[in-house]
Amino acid sequence: MIPRYSRKEMTDIWEPANKFRIWFEIEAHALTKMEELNVVPEGTAKVVWDKGNKEYTPERIARIDEIEMEVKHDVIAFLTELSENVGAEARFVHQGMTSSDVLDTCLGVQMMQAADLLLKDMDRLLAALKTRAEETKYMVCIGRSHGIHAEPVTMGLKFARFYAEMKRNRERLVNAREEIATCAISGAVGTFANVDPRVEEYVAEQMGLSPEPISTQVIPRDRHANYFCVLGMIASSMENIAIEIRHMQRTEVREAQEYFAPGQKGSSAMPHKRNPILTENLTGLARAVRMSVTPALENVALWHERDISHSSVERMIGPDATVTLDFALGRLAGTIEKLVVYPQNMLDHMNNFGGVHDAQRVLLFLTQNNVSREDSYRIVQRNAMRVWKSYGIDPDNPDGEVVMDETEKEAQNHDNRLFFFLSKDEGLTEHLTVDQLKTLLDEDSISYHTKRVDVIFDRVFA
Amino acid sequence: MIPRYSRKEMTDIWEPANKFRIWFEIEAHALTKMEELNVVPEGTAKVVWDKGNKEYTPERIARIDEIEMEVKHDVIAFLTELSENVGAEARFVHQGMTSSDVLDTCLGVQMMQAADLLLKDMDRLLAALKTRAEETKYMVCIGRSHGIHAEPVTMGLKFARFYAEMKRNRERLVNAREEIATCAISGAVGTFANVDPRVEEYVAEQMGLSPEPISTQVIPRDRHANYFCVLGMIASSMENIAIEIRHMQRTEVREAQEYFAPGQKGSSAMPHKRNPILTENLTGLARAVRMSVTPALENVALWHERDISHSSVERMIGPDATVTLDFALGRLAGTIEKLVVYPQNMLDHMNNFGGVHDAQRVLLFLTQNNVSREDSYRIVQRNAMRVWKSYGIDPDNPDGEVVMDETEKEAQNHDNRLFFFLSKDEGLTEHLTVDQLKTLLDEDSISYHTKRVDVIFDRVFA
Amino acid sequence: MIPRYSRKEMTDIWEPANKFRIWFEIEAHALTKMEELNVVPEGTAKVVWDKGNKEYTPERIARIDEIEMEVKHDVIAFLTELSENVGAEARFVHQGMTSSDVLDTCLGVQMMQAADLLLKDMDRLLAALKTRAEETKYMVCIGRSHGIHAEPVTMGLKFARFYAEMKRNRERLVNAREEIATCAISGAVGTFANVDPRVEEYVAEQMGLSPEPISTQVIPRDRHANYFCVLGMIASSMENIAIEIRHMQRTEVREAQEYFAPGQKGSSAMPHKRNPILTENLTGLARAVRMSVTPALENVALWHERDISHSSVERMIGPDATVTLDFALGRLAGTIEKLVVYPQNMLDHMNNFGGVHDAQRVLLFLTQNNVSREDSYRIVQRNAMRVWKSYGIDPDNPDGEVVMDETEKEAQNHDNRLFFFLSKDEGLTEHLTVDQLKTLLDEDSISYHTKRVDVIFDRVFA
Amino acid sequence: MIPRYSRKEMTDIWEPANKFRIWFEIEAHALTKMEELNVVPEGTAKVVWDKGNKEYTPERIARIDEIEMEVKHDVIAFLTELSENVGAEARFVHQGMTSSDVLDTCLGVQMMQAADLLLKDMDRLLAALKTRAEETKYMVCIGRSHGIHAEPVTMGLKFARFYAEMKRNRERLVNAREEIATCAISGAVGTFANVDPRVEEYVAEQMGLSPEPISTQVIPRDRHANYFCVLGMIASSMENIAIEIRHMQRTEVREAQEYFAPGQKGSSAMPHKRNPILTENLTGLARAVRMSVTPALENVALWHERDISHSSVERMIGPDATVTLDFALGRLAGTIEKLVVYPQNMLDHMNNFGGVHDAQRVLLFLTQNNVSREDSYRIVQRNAMRVWKSYGIDPDNPDGEVVMDETEKEAQNHDNRLFFFLSKDEGLTEHLTVDQLKTLLDEDSISYHTKRVDVIFDRVFA
Repeated sequence: MIPRYSRKEMTDIWEPANKFRIWFEIEAHALTKMEELNVVPEGTAKVVWDKGNKEYTPERIARIDEIEMEVKHDVIAFLTELSENVGAEARFVHQGMTSSDVLDTCLGVQMMQAADLLLKDMDRLLAALKTRAEETKYMVCIGRSHGIHAEPVTMGLKFARFYAEMKRNRERLVNAREEIATCAISGAVGTFANVDPRVEEYVAEQMGLSPEPISTQVIPRDRHANYFCVLGMIASSMENIAIEIRHMQRTEVREAQEYFAPGQKGSSAMPHKRNPILTENLTGLARAVRMSVTPALENVALWHERDISHSSVERMIGPDATVTLDFALGRLAGTIEKLVVYPQNMLDHMNNFGGVHDAQRVLLFLTQNNVSREDSYRIVQRNAMRVWKSYGIDPDNPDGEVVMDETEKEAQNHDNRLFFFLSKDEGLTEHLTVDQLKTLLDEDSISYHTKRVDVIFDRVFA
Repeated sequence: MIPRYSRKEMTDIWEPANKFRIWFEIEAHALTKMEELNVVPEGTAKVVWDKGNKEYTPERIARIDEIEMEVKHDVIAFLTELSENVGAEARFVHQGMTSSDVLDTCLGVQMMQAADLLLKDMDRLLAALKTRAEETKYMVCIGRSHGIHAEPVTMGLKFARFYAEMKRNRERLVNAREEIATCAISGAVGTFANVDPRVEEYVAEQMGLSPEPISTQVIPRDRHANYFCVLGMIASSMENIAIEIRHMQRTEVREAQEYFAPGQKGSSAMPHKRNPILTENLTGLARAVRMSVTPALENVALWHERDISHSSVERMIGPDATVTLDFALGRLAGTIEKLVVYPQNMLDHMNNFGGVHDAQRVLLFLTQNNVSREDSYRIVQRNAMRVWKSYGIDPDNPDGEVVMDETEKEAQNHDNRLFFFLSKDEGLTEHLTVDQLKTLLDEDSISYHTKRVDVIFDRVFA
Repeated sequence: MIPRYSRKEMTDIWEPANKFRIWFEIEAHALTKMEELNVVPEGTAKVVWDKGNKEYTPERIARIDEIEMEVKHDVIAFLTELSENVGAEARFVHQGMTSSDVLDTCLGVQMMQAADLLLKDMDRLLAALKTRAEETKYMVCIGRSHGIHAEPVTMGLKFARFYAEMKRNRERLVNAREEIATCAISGAVGTFANVDPRVEEYVAEQMGLSPEPISTQVIPRDRHANYFCVLGMIASSMENIAIEIRHMQRTEVREAQEYFAPGQKGSSAMPHKRNPILTENLTGLARAVRMSVTPALENVALWHERDISHSSVERMIGPDATVTLDFALGRLAGTIEKLVVYPQNMLDHMNNFGGVHDAQRVLLFLTQNNVSREDSYRIVQRNAMRVWKSYGIDPDNPDGEVVMDETEKEAQNHDNRLFFFLSKDEGLTEHLTVDQLKTLLDEDSISYHTKRVDVIFDRVFA
Repeated sequence: MIPRYSRKEMTDIWEPANKFRIWFEIEAHALTKMEELNVVPEGTAKVVWDKGNKEYTPERIARIDEIEMEVKHDVIAFLTELSENVGAEARFVHQGMTSSDVLDTCLGVQMMQAADLLLKDMDRLLAALKTRAEETKYMVCIGRSHGIHAEPVTMGLKFARFYAEMKRNRERLVNAREEIATCAISGAVGTFANVDPRVEEYVAEQMGLSPEPISTQVIPRDRHANYFCVLGMIASSMENIAIEIRHMQRTEVREAQEYFAPGQKGSSAMPHKRNPILTENLTGLARAVRMSVTPALENVALWHERDISHSSVERMIGPDATVTLDFALGRLAGTIEKLVVYPQNMLDHMNNFGGVHDAQRVLLFLTQNNVSREDSYRIVQRNAMRVWKSYGIDPDNPDGEVVMDETEKEAQNHDNRLFFFLSKDEGLTEHLTVDQLKTLLDEDSISYHTKRVDVIFDRVFA
């Protein structure tokens, strides 16, 4: 977590003012219930709420720090400062509780608050992905597997699948939020020996938490591990989107581009450049978020009823991972919202290779017309290779000069070179006539490949 | 995954025989639906089911391998062997599908099968934890935070919290199983250009899967990442239990011990040893399972409509993580089932320090009797320290000789030294009489600390 | 580690035959020294060497396994089988030693042997990189930062930097090999209470190891962690090379291509495809190797004089990481050796944008001719943008139609459009004449950018 | 990196004032060389050094920030502010260089400076470990494997092995420091097209760096990965030491204890506690440092001549890992320096089990007196078990009541119960007399086990 990659709303969650506020609420609610249970004198809670229910200003925080310097204990410092505001009744605050009751429940609240912000971030991102998906639903683009042209897809399908993936992540985060939102007020080793379980239940309810069914001195750390695993998954999906954009912005591809504000400089040395720096940055931030997963998993195994090894880790990865992911999701949403797309470049690339992307379509057509799979494959492959050759590429003789025969030269005058070659292939024409080929394939290529986009969109967005 | 840490039922899932069986089912179900959709001639599916629905014997697998050596393509080799069994109708099998449709759906089925086994493992473990929790519900044991004696807990509470943690893991695995159980039969780039989406829906239903709402050439890898994250969490919780047992078996603690079969040798060099080797082993296996999390997260970001970088990783971590975890969960369940506990040692340890574990109980009692928090703390602390001194331990002067005064020497004749000292402390007796102290604290210490065990058990097991 | 990604020479290192052979040598050398120290009777060692110095055949291994089933102790089983071959003298073997003395020293030997193989792999890879670097030393190619065209480099520079990086990795591996090659024969807790340190020193010398200066029951695990960290670094550098090739093979780039054997099939569904599957596979294998780093680091902290948690981890990652990396390095070397390069495509890409890659060269030239940095930047940038516009790209108005003025249209007839525009820019011509611009820039662009390739090659290969 | 776990000397390295200072030096040294090479006018460098060689005060930094807000480029902002101080000559600064030349070389300098501090930290730690090793060289303590009593070691041996391990880490860090200390001033894609390699060589020399033999736009990231791997190893070794201390401080063990300042509070709820919070904290900090390893390895593979994904990661893990480790090493050194040890407790624990730790010594003695290994083992084991029984522990019947026979009861009056039982075992006495046993074992147990401590210390410290 560094200022460069932080947003205030999220860093505030991890600030002392918010932390002490949560501590106060935990203590005050606990006191209310204790009073009801006749563990503390009647009227105590009212005094504490009346006099203590105030903002934690910088001055108050400074006072707590001052006391902590002396007593070397954060919760005691907090309670002492509170008693300075509240008076004698403060001595009943925290009764029968242990520091971890306050600290651990507070961490749960902070992680819940952080999750709420992240869910808002994801909603913005999901909205952007959906909008762009709809805008580009039928914007045709060559699909690529292995970085190699395969068959046509649409830009809308790309956005739609990122939407579906992030939607799953959203559900995972909703679950993780629910899992982390527990309250433990169970005393030094979790036995409730000195505090009534009903206090825990009451505080939980007031704070929007569930009571932790069984705690030790602390809340079990598998809950936190799960939370960080989900952040790691979101980060990885974010990287997935970022890498797609980086690829599309490559000079040779240039099918999409991050938005550049007028006047924005690219490279200092190379004034002509438009670099995908936002998505490159997001690729790095994904690594940074993901690195919290392993220590969070290592934190699960604690000695007996707790050791404190997890604490220093969480002091770091708690803010780090949530602040960085919040910033990154915001950046990603902005990038998607403003992403510039180049449909003509998409079409040009797709049409660069004489219809070779329809090779499988022909293959299928042949097998459906009584040509065996093996023969069909051979026929289609040899003609696909001739298409390549007509573009000066001989994959079977990559080092040698490309020597075209007359048909290959002639093909250069045709747009759909695949069909041109096929129509001259006797292996094929022995099975069916050129007219049949024409008739059967008269559906235009684009609508052939996009005919189920609608079905898919229904599945994703309906 | 190595034989030493493997069980057959799980390794079978990853064997060729199972893999080819799943491939056959996917292809055959797809064919059934294609026939219904009039994409292939009537009667085709029946022939394929009748002639092809057979076990994949070692002979058949060898034949597939032989063909693969030649054609260098696993799915084609599989289809060719199938056609040798089925005859001409086989040419309609796989029509309009892409290899990944079969491979990726198969992986989903295998991971689903593996999850089912792991769920069975967890059920056995949960049952063991529950049984042992009930057996030891009131077996008192000193609770420890930071490895230091704190206040009493019960052995049953330890088992109960492991139960609750594993139960949460079980739910996570149920979710991960559901997430991974999807079917994609959508063609080379996921557009269904060459195959009807209803084929996918039908196969999904037949195989106990959901249709993947939107795929590319492959099923999105966030689903797999989630699965391995959950395995990592289960492993970490397993480590949590293992570490507890290892601690309890330490020579100086010896409150529990892994079961040793009569005649089983411990150390070769040191015949007197009884080592917690099972739980040490489980600690290592936890690391081995967990190491699949990071590569699974790295697998999420693929280039465009797929690159194949994820594949080699999954060929390894798929079997490795599931086989190892299956073995480990079995070992852990066995260890819990047979774990030997030493209640007398537990009591002895708890009573080793003159009742000092009741320090907080007294603290609370004082504050409830109008002594301020600060005074209470001081009173209790100074008497606790005297208890330690009476045992020859002077924490405030650790290097020096322990010089006891007369009272401290006298205390050595008392069991509850804390109360002995307190009753002689004028700071306390100015606030209340010794009789009050006695009366109020006449509840015996053990029942004081265990009074809410029942409530907790209800929460966990009800 | 799976057969698909394994080579026999490396898997053999981890086979029982090799392991038992190493055990025998450790025991026999130790015996030789013990005899010299008069700890065992004269003549004992000769008998053991004479009768025991034989290959571990499958029959012998089966016998050892049989015994182990009974005694449940691997070293005892080994010693028993040995005594069946050697006779009564065998009882002096292993005297005063502990199992870990044999097991841990053996692991060191295996890791040393594995390192030796990996070093051989790296030598092949380094040789390939060097050869290809020299072949393509001056093969010009556009350099890319952020995936965007920057300034020219040469293909040779790419190979050269991979060479330099792998050379550093080689040195790291040499160090790691030396670090892991230690021998511990120090007894149950490392005190040499029951065995003379000179035995350790002698065995170390005979086996090509150093004596471990201080061990506990085991050799300290930071040595192993270091080894796996180095494997992780090699894997990451391998990924670095793989990603470069995958990028160069993209359809739109096609500046290089993995070698395809005549007749080799690409995609089953799309017969026209040539996919970079080897380097994609290597990208995945890099993740698989790298995943051993974290558990190896987690293995360092052991309880007291040892716990056995590290052992199961090492049984897996020892073979897995070395076998996979050995296979991957071989695959990478083969890929480099046969990589097909397309120099014409490289030139075409570089020249696709009217000399805009010389923008910085002009910038520098202007500042050296008394134009301020800010003015120079503005001049160059505005003309660079016009170059883009003349290619139909208007980065400042990406959504709108590209409206070219007359000069921009005229530019389309020029190869070096950057200079064409600059020569018409009054902001520039007020500082210097077009002739000056011409004179000063008459060095051809390619030799300008490649003039220090020689210096760099000297640094790398000299 | 959070203030709680930070030390100023290290955080200063990562502050803007230090960063800009390094940038200035790189630029000014480069200029000096350029002037010598006649690339810039004579006298330029003197002006820049004279006027620019000043501290980067908060005011200057604020001014740079202000400019950066406007131009959105950190290096340009820096250069602009510099020109405000230096005047017209500033326009020659940075000529032919690229931002990364400055940024990447600066990062190398910062990582070198951080390594220097860490080396100082390690020296303090090594000194502490050595001092404590010497103090406790012959302080006998039971050695433990698997957490179970094995044979005696000394406290000094523990410190000595931590010393040896940290010494290896120190060497690794020296290497990593040397590897990271390189200088790249090679222009936009590393070809030196616009800058003379001699500039790089000169700047390197002046800054205590080596010239990077071959760079792209950036210094290759395997160097950084190596650095973070080494930090991860140091962290893991730190955890190794921390875990040892935590174990020794357990209530039941209490052989060592972290120093507590008089008046320092332990638990708020449990006033009697002395928790090993420093070493628990170090255990967590080890995880936090280690988490930088994976992203550093992921940073190695960059696209073509660079992508900027590594940058955000390094902005975080650079400061985070070094600051945290610096703090942690300081804390660890302090903990070792003041660690309180309890030699009497050590002796008591060792002697708690009637000499059973000499079991192997007897075993060895028997085999050396013509008893077969198998018989020896049986004899020793059965008597060791009787020792346990005499302490009320029956490992073979853990659930049942321990029923002692007369000899076992009698043994309770003997200190060395193992010898007591052995002397009554006819299996033994048929091979040798009790007097022989006595004579041969009259060397006292402690000096038997510690006789090679000297040899080991010589190896480690000589």
